[in-house]
Amino acid sequence: MSIISLCEPKYLELKNRLIQIQDLEAAASLLNWDQTTYMPTGGTYARGRQIATLKEFAHQKRTEPIIGKLLEDLRAYEKSLPYDSTEASLIRVTRRDYERAVRVPPEFMAKFSQHQAVSYEAWVKAKSLEDFSIVEPYLEKTLELSRELASFFPYKHIADPLIDFIDEGMTVSILRPLFNQLRQKLRPIVEAITSAPPIDDSCLYQHFSKEEQLKFGYAVIQRIGFDFQRGRQDETPHPFTSSFSIGDVRITTRVYEDNFSEALFSTIHEVGHALYEQGIGLELEGTPLAEGSSSGIHESQSRLWENIVGRSRGFWECFYPQLQGIFLKQLSPVSVSEFYRAINKVARSPIRTDADEVTYNLHVMIRFDLELAMLEGKLDVSDLPEAWNERYKKDLGIFPANDSEGVMQDVHWYGEMIGGMFQGYTLGNLIAAQVYQAAVKYNPEITVAIERGNFTLLHTWLKQNIHQHGRKYTANELIHRVTGKPLSIEPFINYIQDKYSNIYHLKVPLSA
Amino acid sequence: MSIISLCEPKYLELKNRLIQIQDLEAAASLLNWDQTTYMPTGGTYARGRQIATLKEFAHQKRTEPIIGKLLEDLRAYEKSLPYDSTEASLIRVTRRDYERAVRVPPEFMAKFSQHQAVSYEAWVKAKSLEDFSIVEPYLEKTLELSRELASFFPYKHIADPLIDFIDEGMTVSILRPLFNQLRQKLRPIVEAITSAPPIDDSCLYQHFSKEEQLKFGYAVIQRIGFDFQRGRQDETPHPFTSSFSIGDVRITTRVYEDNFSEALFSTIHEVGHALYEQGIGLELEGTPLAEGSSSGIHESQSRLWENIVGRSRGFWECFYPQLQGIFLKQLSPVSVSEFYRAINKVARSPIRTDADEVTYNLHVMIRFDLELAMLEGKLDVSDLPEAWNERYKKDLGIFPANDSEGVMQDVHWYGEMIGGMFQGYTLGNLIAAQVYQAAVKYNPEITVAIERGNFTLLHTWLKQNIHQHGRKYTANELIHRVTGKPLSIEPFINYIQDKYSNIYHLKVPLSA
Repeated sequence: MSIISLCEPKYLELKNRLIQIQDLEAAASLLNWDQTTYMPTGGTYARGRQIATLKEFAHQKRTEPIIGKLLEDLRAYEKSLPYDSTEASLIRVTRRDYERAVRVPPEFMAKFSQHQAVSYEAWVKAKSLEDFSIVEPYLEKTLELSRELASFFPYKHIADPLIDFIDEGMTVSILRPLFNQLRQKLRPIVEAITSAPPIDDSCLYQHFSKEEQLKFGYAVIQRIGFDFQRGRQDETPHPFTSSFSIGDVRITTRVYEDNFSEALFSTIHEVGHALYEQGIGLELEGTPLAEGSSSGIHESQSRLWENIVGRSRGFWECFYPQLQGIFLKQLSPVSVSEFYRAINKVARSPIRTDADEVTYNLHVMIRFDLELAMLEGKLDVSDLPEAWNERYKKDLGIFPANDSEGVMQDVHWYGEMIGGMFQGYTLGNLIAAQVYQAAVKYNPEITVAIERGNFTLLHTWLKQNIHQHGRKYTANELIHRVTGKPLSIEPFINYIQDKYSNIYHLKVPLSA
Repeated sequence: MSIISLCEPKYLELKNRLIQIQDLEAAASLLNWDQTTYMPTGGTYARGRQIATLKEFAHQKRTEPIIGKLLEDLRAYEKSLPYDSTEASLIRVTRRDYERAVRVPPEFMAKFSQHQAVSYEAWVKAKSLEDFSIVEPYLEKTLELSRELASFFPYKHIADPLIDFIDEGMTVSILRPLFNQLRQKLRPIVEAITSAPPIDDSCLYQHFSKEEQLKFGYAVIQRIGFDFQRGRQDETPHPFTSSFSIGDVRITTRVYEDNFSEALFSTIHEVGHALYEQGIGLELEGTPLAEGSSSGIHESQSRLWENIVGRSRGFWECFYPQLQGIFLKQLSPVSVSEFYRAINKVARSPIRTDADEVTYNLHVMIRFDLELAMLEGKLDVSDLPEAWNERYKKDLGIFPANDSEGVMQDVHWYGEMIGGMFQGYTLGNLIAAQVYQAAVKYNPEITVAIERGNFTLLHTWLKQNIHQHGRKYTANELIHRVTGKPLSIEPFINYIQDKYSNIYHLKVPLSA
């Protein structure tokens, strides 16, 4: 018997243990999904405790010494296998997870979790009272704890380990120059667009009944390829996607009757995430490989479907007649061109989540830079609101009315940590454009197919090139494999220039 | 420092461990609830595995030696406390659970679980093909495993440990004479009733729209006292109640548009279970005490509300005008008396779950006796269908059309085990009558209050006397405390005699 075949029982043992850990995680996710969808309010207290217990057990199991032992014993087996075999990938990814998890003392994690809970409460209060001073001491503690968390890892930049948690392989030395480049290109584009006559998007702010919006959205996402045999859609105050297995991936949505864009585009966004999760190879089911590769790759799938497809002219050539048929009174006076321009209106606005795809990354990069400055000790928490407002003035030409509309608008720093919280959003936009460019280059029929309501070409290509692999490849590996190039801002900038020169009837194409 | 105060940290440790185990159980219950309500079919495979994992971890944690050690260390502390203090009760109940759990080897439980899953599959097939021979070998194995399970415990009768699992403290020596007595009293009552002119209940089998049925049911259960802030109702093929915490207790229902009784009475039944779970004292939250005392006590609450209250004349004096208002066409020709008689029609029928409250216990006791005979080795599995049919002929005067309508009608033996599966249903009916008698004796206003739609008097009394205690008392202790007497068949027989003499206009009151 060779060493290799002796190793297989250990591989199976490892895999079984990992599946059980994923089962605990999946249960925690379902408890969370239920809490935001159907749980009666009386369940709140116990539910928080139940989720915490499941996560604690999962963490315990994930850091048991037996996992480390099995990983050691499996080194030779791993080396004997192709890099991208399921077995080698599972061992490799598990080793990364394990080595990361055991570096952080459980007492520290408990302390941090507790702090996150009280900080979140303080943020809710501070935001409603528009008073940053309420949350300031908590944020100072969060900064301290975020730095301490980073200190358990070796790093070149203190933000690197925190970024690595959700965007593995990305570092400040990669991201800072990339983002600086992007900002320099974006500012003049935004300048040119906002100097042009503004688009009238009032057609989107008529009354659209909730029921009809949901029905239309349902038809759209079914057509796109969301599999309702292996998923469902429910309503929640904040839309999200959760996966409990490859066969059970759920999205949520919210509907505003006085704003057509909100429900549909956030639904398509979540479907982008969901197609990724539904498309993971079945052989990865239940293992840590059955997840998205990184925050940036995941966001690339949602933004690709939401913006590049969902806000494209071709998409609406296909769906607009149907939409007009449903909302006859509201939309019969509106041509498809007018509608297309309305859903792509660019405006300098204070809120990230409301931002159009041109200005969106400017919002994100402000946060990224401020995170770095705080972690580097160059920016005090007490000076954060002022720094925030200055950057908004400089990058977006606007000044938030108050701190709730400014520095306190996003929950991330207040409910999680400082560091690694935002880069994924901009990475998502960049990767989406680069990936879509590669898809169309490989199969130029894709854009025409979309006009005809055929999304299978694109969906299948994404599934084969990205979705099926789950976490086998890191973001950088995947981008290379799929597009043949390292991550770059060019596809995104080209996409924006082409699309918005046209939409804003700019005589000279946008040059950046 | 006294021994007692030194023990308290150990008590807290025990309690915290128990709460975490309950958290795993609650998560497993939610995964199960979700599977029957909202889960897309694609989730089936992974969901089964996830539930199994949670249950396995819960079992592991429950049988860890540290639990035994803490229980030992807490003996003096327990003795220093009043018997029914929360602390003493938690230690006592946990000790019983622990001693029971550690007797059964985990490998045996795994083997039994696996067998239960395949046996269940075979039963589904056998039932649809009306072919007992398909499931017979599985049932033989189930009998063998049920006997083996019992053998891990000391017993007087081999069924005792199996009965004790869900009806703690009940034994064959208590139940057999009680049930024989009950059967002897019931047979002539059924004889007298079924000799009287049959009731026309065709008014219940008109078309009743699902939406209106649900609306009416919702109004009824809210009035009864189901707290929708701490619970909800959903639709499933088979109604059930599940509790994820005292603040989150959910019921399910099913609606037949051509049968009015089905949805409403099964809903009230589940609400009876749910009021119990919602009424448990908050100081027990998350612990093993936050459950019903036993299967029989739990069933007593559901049957009390379903039958003694929900099928009472007073109840319909209150609700019938409202029901007539909703189903004007169907019910305006039907008087409240006619309706009351219709919902209480007694008939010899082959299916337990369709049986009226007079014949119901005869169904249950047939199963109880057959279980005992098989466990005692006096009845072979191959002879079971014949024995079943003979007993149906003898006790109910009917002969099942086939084995699917006969011996294969209930899932219990095929999906769980042989032994302890059925006594709880009849215990429930007996306890319900005895408890209700005590309630009315304590507060004679209760029946008048019900006529006026005031259920608070009864609900409050049940909460104070039964619900709040959770598992602090065994069924026998609770019956004694609440009614001042041991369990007896008299209150049930009196209730049946009074009610049905009247309904069937029997000149001579039913004597039994």
